[in-house]
Amino acid sequence: MTYFERLSRRCEETAGICVGIDPHGGVLDTWSMSHDVHGVERFAMGVIEALGDQVAAFKPQSAFFEMWGSPGIAVLERCISAIRETGALVILDVKRGDIGSTMQAYAQAYLGDGPLGVDAITVSPYLGFGALQPAFEMALNHGRGVYVLARTSNPEGADIQLGSTHGGAQVAQGIVDQGQAWNDMAGANVVSLVVGGTHADLGIDLTEFTSSLLIPGIGTQGGTISGLESSMGGTQAVLLPSVSREVLMAGPDPQGLRDAVSRVLPS
Amino acid sequence: MTYFERLSRRCEETAGICVGIDPHGGVLDTWSMSHDVHGVERFAMGVIEALGDQVAAFKPQSAFFEMWGSPGIAVLERCISAIRETGALVILDVKRGDIGSTMQAYAQAYLGDGPLGVDAITVSPYLGFGALQPAFEMALNHGRGVYVLARTSNPEGADIQLGSTHGGAQVAQGIVDQGQAWNDMAGANVVSLVVGGTHADLGIDLTEFTSSLLIPGIGTQGGTISGLESSMGGTQAVLLPSVSREVLMAGPDPQGLRDAVSRVLPS
Repeated sequence: MTYFERLSRRCEETAGICVGIDPHGGVLDTWSMSHDVHGVERFAMGVIEALGDQVAAFKPQSAFFEMWGSPGIAVLERCISAIRETGALVILDVKRGDIGSTMQAYAQAYLGDGPLGVDAITVSPYLGFGALQPAFEMALNHGRGVYVLARTSNPEGADIQLGSTHGGAQVAQGIVDQGQAWNDMAGANVVSLVVGGTHADLGIDLTEFTSSLLIPGIGTQGGTISGLESSMGGTQAVLLPSVSREVLMAGPDPQGLRDAVSRVLPS
Repeated sequence: MTYFERLSRRCEETAGICVGIDPHGGVLDTWSMSHDVHGVERFAMGVIEALGDQVAAFKPQSAFFEMWGSPGIAVLERCISAIRETGALVILDVKRGDIGSTMQAYAQAYLGDGPLGVDAITVSPYLGFGALQPAFEMALNHGRGVYVLARTSNPEGADIQLGSTHGGAQVAQGIVDQGQAWNDMAGANVVSLVVGGTHADLGIDLTEFTSSLLIPGIGTQGGTISGLESSMGGTQAVLLPSVSREVLMAGPDPQGLRDAVSRVLPS
């Protein structure tokens, strides 16, 4: 099965949202966890155990594991295994983007069968959509997905993303259109997109886009799932809203975490 | 001392170039090294021992360590320590770029005092130059440097980089100008730039830029150090040409590596 098929099925069987695993200092304090790899691991495993059967996917934020060096990456590897056991998908938020053999190495790291191999990753297109090709190919061949940053949730994102390419297209729209064209060519929904849930007007047309949209910015950042109907209006894509702080700060009590997930779902 | 001061001094004392540490399959084969973490470590240590007293900096490419998971990151940590002992600077090529607490975590990971703390890193501005602020501040406070991708060496890079921002500036030129403005405001050359050495015409004006320019694309990709005088013409910046394959493929013989460095220097 492709990543897109697994995601679509999982969205039907669960609450259909993604929960970020962001072990930053503030959430570790709220959970009374130590600021070290042990605290990070206990926190992450607590989130996974409490919500693994409820959510479509978890999105570990790589930065919060990388900051502890190789022992932090070892914790990330164990989290990936633990998520797998729950049946939820793993979208690793790494925002990698490079060229040639380096992009190929990132694809092998995260879309291959190694210890950090996951269901999907995020990638960043500053070096050109075409430079991401090794990741798309690896994903196609291994049943994985790639979320390209198109229009991010933060205000500073507008500067480049709403600008225009050398060829004259709007940058974010160019990512949408090139992503759809790649999927059409491959005959599979491999290329997906990151679009922020914080914008009343995204400034891009997603009507023709058929793969999946990962939508951060839900909850504390201000976006709501019910608000997505208008901002993402008319798209054929599978929407995957992603919430982090709003849910994580409701822990460590497992029921508190589950209640927080229920609260962000449209009533 | 700031990163910029350390780099400037080191460039005077050595050949003034940066050598990439890119343990991809091709170079491991040439060195008759196994395709595993042991081969990666022996290769990297061989490069560091042979060239540590000759070059200004080494640029390990994070992807080739990440692809081996946490044991690969442990090798990267040992390489960073080994480079430090030679006196050469470490520019870790990670091309990270995120927002808020996540960008802060990347800054702590790579510009702090942890096991992956280095002299400088590369970052990617698709989420906006302003989103990189936590890295600039960490670098300022810890005497480190940050290389923002401006105009990369690959052909696909032109699409976004030579386009225009929402505000109407050329994207790459906007990075140059915002970088210089940040340094002027901070009173220190913290923000540096990545500009490819492969372009006859860069399409950006670097005349007023006073920090450092990391210039990949020298050697196999087609750029030459003598060619930089015209393509980077008139800049006040400290130029740091970076060469990888052209030197690495001359190993594992240490003298072969040193001769390869001499060959890429202008006669």
